[in-house]
Amino acid sequence: MSAPLPHPLPLPHLLPHHDGSPLHVSADAPALGDVVRVRLRVPAGYGPLAAVRTRSNPDHEPEWTDAERIGTADGWDWWEAPVTVRNPRHGYRFLLQHEDGRIEWLNQTGIHRLETLDAEDFALVAAPTPPAWLHESVMYQVFPDRFARSAQADEHPTPDWAIPASWDTPVDPVMPGRAHQFYGGDIPGIIEHLDHLVALGVNLLYLTPVFPAASNHRYDASSFLSVDPLLGGDAAYARLIEEAHARGIKVIGDLTSNHSGDRHEWFRAAYGHPGAPEERFYYFTDTANTEYECWMGAKSLPKFDWSSDELRERFITADDSVVARWLKAPYGADGWRVDVANMTGRLGAIDLNADVRRLLHETVRGINPEAILLGESTNDATSDLQGDGWDGAMTYPSFTRPVWAWLSAPNGQPYLTAEGQERTESWFFGMQVGGIPRYTARDFVDSMTRFTAGIPWRVRLGNMQPLDTHDTARFATNAAPGTVPVAVGLSMTLPGVPVVFAGDEFGLTSVDGEASRTPIPWGSEERPEVAERIGLYRDLVQLRRAHPVLGTGGLRWLHADDDCVVFVRESAAETVLVLAARGDVDVELAPGGLSGAAAAVALHGDAMLAVSDDGAVALAADGPAFAAWALPGVVVPAPLEGR
Amino acid sequence: MSAPLPHPLPLPHLLPHHDGSPLHVSADAPALGDVVRVRLRVPAGYGPLAAVRTRSNPDHEPEWTDAERIGTADGWDWWEAPVTVRNPRHGYRFLLQHEDGRIEWLNQTGIHRLETLDAEDFALVAAPTPPAWLHESVMYQVFPDRFARSAQADEHPTPDWAIPASWDTPVDPVMPGRAHQFYGGDIPGIIEHLDHLVALGVNLLYLTPVFPAASNHRYDASSFLSVDPLLGGDAAYARLIEEAHARGIKVIGDLTSNHSGDRHEWFRAAYGHPGAPEERFYYFTDTANTEYECWMGAKSLPKFDWSSDELRERFITADDSVVARWLKAPYGADGWRVDVANMTGRLGAIDLNADVRRLLHETVRGINPEAILLGESTNDATSDLQGDGWDGAMTYPSFTRPVWAWLSAPNGQPYLTAEGQERTESWFFGMQVGGIPRYTARDFVDSMTRFTAGIPWRVRLGNMQPLDTHDTARFATNAAPGTVPVAVGLSMTLPGVPVVFAGDEFGLTSVDGEASRTPIPWGSEERPEVAERIGLYRDLVQLRRAHPVLGTGGLRWLHADDDCVVFVRESAAETVLVLAARGDVDVELAPGGLSGAAAAVALHGDAMLAVSDDGAVALAADGPAFAAWALPGVVVPAPLEGR
Repeated sequence: MSAPLPHPLPLPHLLPHHDGSPLHVSADAPALGDVVRVRLRVPAGYGPLAAVRTRSNPDHEPEWTDAERIGTADGWDWWEAPVTVRNPRHGYRFLLQHEDGRIEWLNQTGIHRLETLDAEDFALVAAPTPPAWLHESVMYQVFPDRFARSAQADEHPTPDWAIPASWDTPVDPVMPGRAHQFYGGDIPGIIEHLDHLVALGVNLLYLTPVFPAASNHRYDASSFLSVDPLLGGDAAYARLIEEAHARGIKVIGDLTSNHSGDRHEWFRAAYGHPGAPEERFYYFTDTANTEYECWMGAKSLPKFDWSSDELRERFITADDSVVARWLKAPYGADGWRVDVANMTGRLGAIDLNADVRRLLHETVRGINPEAILLGESTNDATSDLQGDGWDGAMTYPSFTRPVWAWLSAPNGQPYLTAEGQERTESWFFGMQVGGIPRYTARDFVDSMTRFTAGIPWRVRLGNMQPLDTHDTARFATNAAPGTVPVAVGLSMTLPGVPVVFAGDEFGLTSVDGEASRTPIPWGSEERPEVAERIGLYRDLVQLRRAHPVLGTGGLRWLHADDDCVVFVRESAAETVLVLAARGDVDVELAPGGLSGAAAAVALHGDAMLAVSDDGAVALAADGPAFAAWALPGVVVPAPLEGR
Repeated sequence: MSAPLPHPLPLPHLLPHHDGSPLHVSADAPALGDVVRVRLRVPAGYGPLAAVRTRSNPDHEPEWTDAERIGTADGWDWWEAPVTVRNPRHGYRFLLQHEDGRIEWLNQTGIHRLETLDAEDFALVAAPTPPAWLHESVMYQVFPDRFARSAQADEHPTPDWAIPASWDTPVDPVMPGRAHQFYGGDIPGIIEHLDHLVALGVNLLYLTPVFPAASNHRYDASSFLSVDPLLGGDAAYARLIEEAHARGIKVIGDLTSNHSGDRHEWFRAAYGHPGAPEERFYYFTDTANTEYECWMGAKSLPKFDWSSDELRERFITADDSVVARWLKAPYGADGWRVDVANMTGRLGAIDLNADVRRLLHETVRGINPEAILLGESTNDATSDLQGDGWDGAMTYPSFTRPVWAWLSAPNGQPYLTAEGQERTESWFFGMQVGGIPRYTARDFVDSMTRFTAGIPWRVRLGNMQPLDTHDTARFATNAAPGTVPVAVGLSMTLPGVPVVFAGDEFGLTSVDGEASRTPIPWGSEERPEVAERIGLYRDLVQLRRAHPVLGTGGLRWLHADDDCVVFVRESAAETVLVLAARGDVDVELAPGGLSGAAAAVALHGDAMLAVSDDGAVALAADGPAFAAWALPGVVVPAPLEGR
């Protein structure tokens, strides 16, 4: 039993719908005790329904409310119910009671005949929302050593650990070059290219670490209190943020809450010095303070012990803490992406992760209510994304891996490991699965659903949606022919924060996460294939930014088969219809699922949309295809509270 | 999209299998750092497989190990891999890599092509096991006011709150009778009938509260430090436990960790007395200590505030605490069932539940390593059942509700609410779903899987498996004709602790959780229909107790359709094959899924089992049917560590 269920379902289904968007939820930042009105849309003719109710679970004991049918619009019956928010994460689901006695449940995984799990309920978060700009952002990720090298960089001596490389040297994937190959990109170099970001249309710059360290990636900080002089130092960092802000671009830094480098001033004070104030910042395992816990066995990365009050103070809570220093003047960074957030505070029987993420969140918002906090959690991030810490995660199973698995070529590129071992299968996120799995479009949808079902809608909107990062091979490397525009289009139109990893817009490829730290080939922008790729990114970033519904609108899937997905992002102001396919498209959406299609305005891509007299919508395109249309917003009957 | 997936699958599938039983896991109580060897069985011909691996997630970062194929036996290929246990709940799953490049994952929900959630991993618990007797028990639940009234009961005056009722008065479902109708059952009455328990074969007696209170249910204790004199007082309680132990029957009590009664000595000391030492035991919300938080709005049940150190001490940790007192001599109870465990310590933004359950667990085991701790959690109990507190839960969605939904008659009995309101639909666990949902047998299996997939195997084995309790209507009330033996049989043969709610063996019915607190009709045992029902229980309890594999063996589903399920419980020593059906049965199990069937010995029920030359197994019966057979144990190739 428990056999694999058949995939994909052959046809779209027109089903009751709810999500956390403003169309369906009256308030997204309730206080405890507030009544939020939640709305369910049911396709006309789906019932008849005898009743619709909500089921919450405050303090882990069920509570029910009755919905009222508030009206019908555009083929949907709308039901509305009050939900009193009683816990910081307040889960709820809908019960549909048919007149014939059948019942159905609706939760974040869809509609069910069988009783459902609490973990997959819709969820409200009783806390102020993240700053609105987070959901209006398109992020651009820069790895400082490889982005751009200014003239000033020549003034700095090469550090002791570094293996100097000229800008056009291939990246060395094998240790020690892997960590020590040094290209000398710097912050003035970034400043010199800010207008490239402006031209692309991105408005949030994420820099991997800028602290002094003994590696090219700088995740092994030797201090958190200065910017590496090799990058231009504190003044260059302040100037970068000022120049970026002047261009409407926010800037966030990268902080390691799991570990420091073994050259870190705190670690040096404690290492071999029993009794030092900093010895409790780490997990020393011998009396001489020479053995210690570290990240994944890497002795250069000693792990922090968050039971230390003084560490909490110096890292997070003090007025001049690490976290505070760079958010305040004269720097004024707009938040942090936190490295290895998933392992932070966790070691065997110890789990202080919730303490740390909550303290970080409280501190960041206390310093600047407009600052954000993102956490790296590259696998299933559900348990840590309940709205009490991270505004979103840098996470891969809910978008990045499914889009790779759907849109990669069957035989991708093999790679070399850090030890120089040849792997004959394509790199796939360090997962020992023998290469890139093969997903259908329906699998892509089901995977996204699975890995977002446990996350409150609001937090989901803050999740980073990269095709690749400095830790992964570049998507284009293994992409099936013609699918890069499809993948980029999806990253810009699905819920979450789109991310452009610097270099993707130049068409760079790379077989693993080390090779992807590629120097940017400045000067190649005019080459036709580069110009075309940059243009693609510019157009799709523009699509995202011109349509706020892509940031905060609801998500409703209309179709998924082996090769094609169709969905809408919806608000009262506008609807964006999206088609994404790896093959040719010839899809008919049954009448009733999509109103306003007759007024559709093409926004992107070459695809045909035709509306029949009965309201069916036909979509056709030569694949691979990515297309988007603007439609009128969703018509909603007046909510009860406004009557 | 997200349409309901087709149910049921038409045919059984022979699939790779793993569970937490000793066939598949080398150690069930590892210490942190121990290596446990986990084994996967793959049907011969399922692959060919290029590799099998495990994926764990220590400290929330993946770790992989390779499995080796250790041999083939009885048509199964066995693979074995080491897993180093790194967290108190250590999750793992299997990856199957086919030679043709396809991959599959196996977790507690079954086999998947798509990446799976951490929450559904198999899980080891790095802590000593619960006492072995828990998994060898058949529990018998007694509600003291309604079980048996001894001659001594006449000596006690009727308390002020009570509405006296003679033993044959119908139970009053409407307030105030609902809570105050007083039949005067007592502990000497229980002692007088212990031989009834012996005859049934049950070996664990669970008593709902015996503390003095102002209601017939006694969940509103006025003290935790004495047994209600109306029940016979402390001496009777000590004698009951002694007499039960002499008959090989363990005894557990019932404790309210969520609240006391408003007549409780602690509450009286604090109520209206600001500054009293006990005021911090409760959530007073005014300065006069007259307004307070309580259970579900019931002012007679003030809620405990577990942030009080003194409450923790007096309730749990002190040598003479409430928890300790009754586990120690001269009483020597064998553990506790904790009422409203799900809400304990939870109120709005506060969640101290994990603290309380861990402290209770540590204390109970510290006093008596052979004592158990069960927690009431009547809905989705997953989040609280990770092995750090409760040895199991009194919970309904993983067995009780699915078995009702599968085996109840389409039109059950309506009921009266506490307010006397007539409900025209059958009672269903207080869920506002319009009566009892209609499940198929496949739905029953899928629901059990859904609500156990997040729970470590070991904890699942400790979950109570009642058909009904003092809080529910009795199962027989709405059972489809002939299905009581099917339901009782399932409760005795599926993983979990079977529970007989006193009176079920007399064939009692009742339309809701109040009416189910029925006085036991002593003297009716010889009536043919009662004698038959008692005989059924005795036979099925005996089946359970005679076959240890039903307590701790693995579980493998062989078949499920609309009307019928077939499964095996498996160990190296024995296999029990079970057939349960609400209709006629004519099932063929394809060859390969079940070896040893030719040697099957019928244990219970009227059903035909025939084995074809090719190894297919045919099962047939007139429904409803419950049947079980003994088969040889599973042949396992020698594990690697033993070679």
